[in-house]
Amino acid sequence: MSENRVEQVELLSSDNDSYGGVVVKIEQPIDSKIFPSLLRASISQWRQQGKTGVWIKLPIEHANLVEATVKEGFRYHHAEPDYLMLVCWLPETADTIPLNASHRVGVGSFVMNSKREVLVVQEISGKFKGTGVWKFPTGVVNEGEDFCTAAIREVKEETGIDTEFVEVLAFRQSHKSFFSKSDLLFICMLKPRNFDIEKQNLEIEAAKWMPIEDYAAQPFNQKQELFNYVAKICLSKSEKNYTGFSPLATTTGSGKVSYLYFNNQDNNHLVTSDNQPLKV
Amino acid sequence: MSENRVEQVELLSSDNDSYGGVVVKIEQPIDSKIFPSLLRASISQWRQQGKTGVWIKLPIEHANLVEATVKEGFRYHHAEPDYLMLVCWLPETADTIPLNASHRVGVGSFVMNSKREVLVVQEISGKFKGTGVWKFPTGVVNEGEDFCTAAIREVKEETGIDTEFVEVLAFRQSHKSFFSKSDLLFICMLKPRNFDIEKQNLEIEAAKWMPIEDYAAQPFNQKQELFNYVAKICLSKSEKNYTGFSPLATTTGSGKVSYLYFNNQDNNHLVTSDNQPLKV
Repeated sequence: MSENRVEQVELLSSDNDSYGGVVVKIEQPIDSKIFPSLLRASISQWRQQGKTGVWIKLPIEHANLVEATVKEGFRYHHAEPDYLMLVCWLPETADTIPLNASHRVGVGSFVMNSKREVLVVQEISGKFKGTGVWKFPTGVVNEGEDFCTAAIREVKEETGIDTEFVEVLAFRQSHKSFFSKSDLLFICMLKPRNFDIEKQNLEIEAAKWMPIEDYAAQPFNQKQELFNYVAKICLSKSEKNYTGFSPLATTTGSGKVSYLYFNNQDNNHLVTSDNQPLKV
Repeated sequence: MSENRVEQVELLSSDNDSYGGVVVKIEQPIDSKIFPSLLRASISQWRQQGKTGVWIKLPIEHANLVEATVKEGFRYHHAEPDYLMLVCWLPETADTIPLNASHRVGVGSFVMNSKREVLVVQEISGKFKGTGVWKFPTGVVNEGEDFCTAAIREVKEETGIDTEFVEVLAFRQSHKSFFSKSDLLFICMLKPRNFDIEKQNLEIEAAKWMPIEDYAAQPFNQKQELFNYVAKICLSKSEKNYTGFSPLATTTGSGKVSYLYFNNQDNNHLVTSDNQPLKV
């Protein structure tokens, strides 16, 4: 009798994760009146099994289930345009649910030609609109994009100039830049491969090559501490008196490639020119 | 008559943002049966006013309004534990809603004493559990936290050692590390101020000082490309043959302090020892 009853209770299907928790993906429509009992019965089973964190990924088509999930004690974890991730920590022990992504990543590109002119733009909107300030091409790194790739893409999109990545010259971390999130801005040096500017019309008012001394001497760059330092670093780099961090592709055990950025110029290069690491 | 009718339609209260859009904060409970008509009337007014992006911030207590908001054409933008942000782009022009935060930021700390021993730990859980690998203290940067502060905090929490921040030696960007998000890991050098380890029990199995050559020679560090490079960079630094990026506090026009990290050692220091920038 009791066995029959157990079998009659339908449960949400879930996968185990590697941290003792479970992940539920709702892929078929569920009536929001039926869902609470399904969820409650599932939670009860997960508790018996000693599960820790329960993740529920709700595609936006199933927004009808958000309220019921919250009522069962779940909180929001993160959201992307097409889904909402909710999470609940079942045990009495301290909650070890990892934090959500906290930073946006941007790039600013220092591109100089052999006449010591830098590639600069004026933007149509944003805080520099109408100020007459000439600035480096900048942009936000896309999801999953290496920022050394993003820098090249943004320069191409805004000015039509093809470039190759040289170094990260500096970077800045700032907070509360966008809702409660933080920002990491990487100032990158790129080497131009062509010189004829083709201004992109949507975001850019004007683009040109400008003598680096004129760029640095703009009143705005003199007044704003951060821009002033960046201009000095770029001037120093233009005189070959500065070493930044250069990227090296590394492969993990699982075959994923990720870039390590470091100073590869000091005294002995850590990586030889044919990309072979030196022996320790 | 028509004027009366207009006045009878209640609207959601909203604030203008600096980009031609509006932000709605739902702070009082609203019946989910009444909400759709309120939202529709408000959207109609915003359209007439030529508004662009409409942001609706729904605290988790008002999860009852998520479904109705989605039905009116909103998509998710981001979520934090206690609220969900939805957004809708009203005009026919291209949607310029900014991207959500894309990266988590972590720190790994290289702390060496005068005997060329580095501070290393073994973790209770995670992928190194039970491997016998000794690693640098690591951790995730909290929301709004400077990573130079986070590195000091994590070392203190895991080992009881007080430190001061010296330099960023290297950093790595990797993708798909956590759901669809990316990761930036900063390898930092810190200088210890005390030497008696007080292991923290919750996350750490063991902590000790280990000769740097033994650290680098661990089979794991030899085999894994990334760890191998990091070990080499630290060895090079321990022999004073390496310059990383050091932090400098800069203040924006609005008085916010943010750190700029750069190579301040090459040839001429860009910033003098009393923190005064050199003249261009």
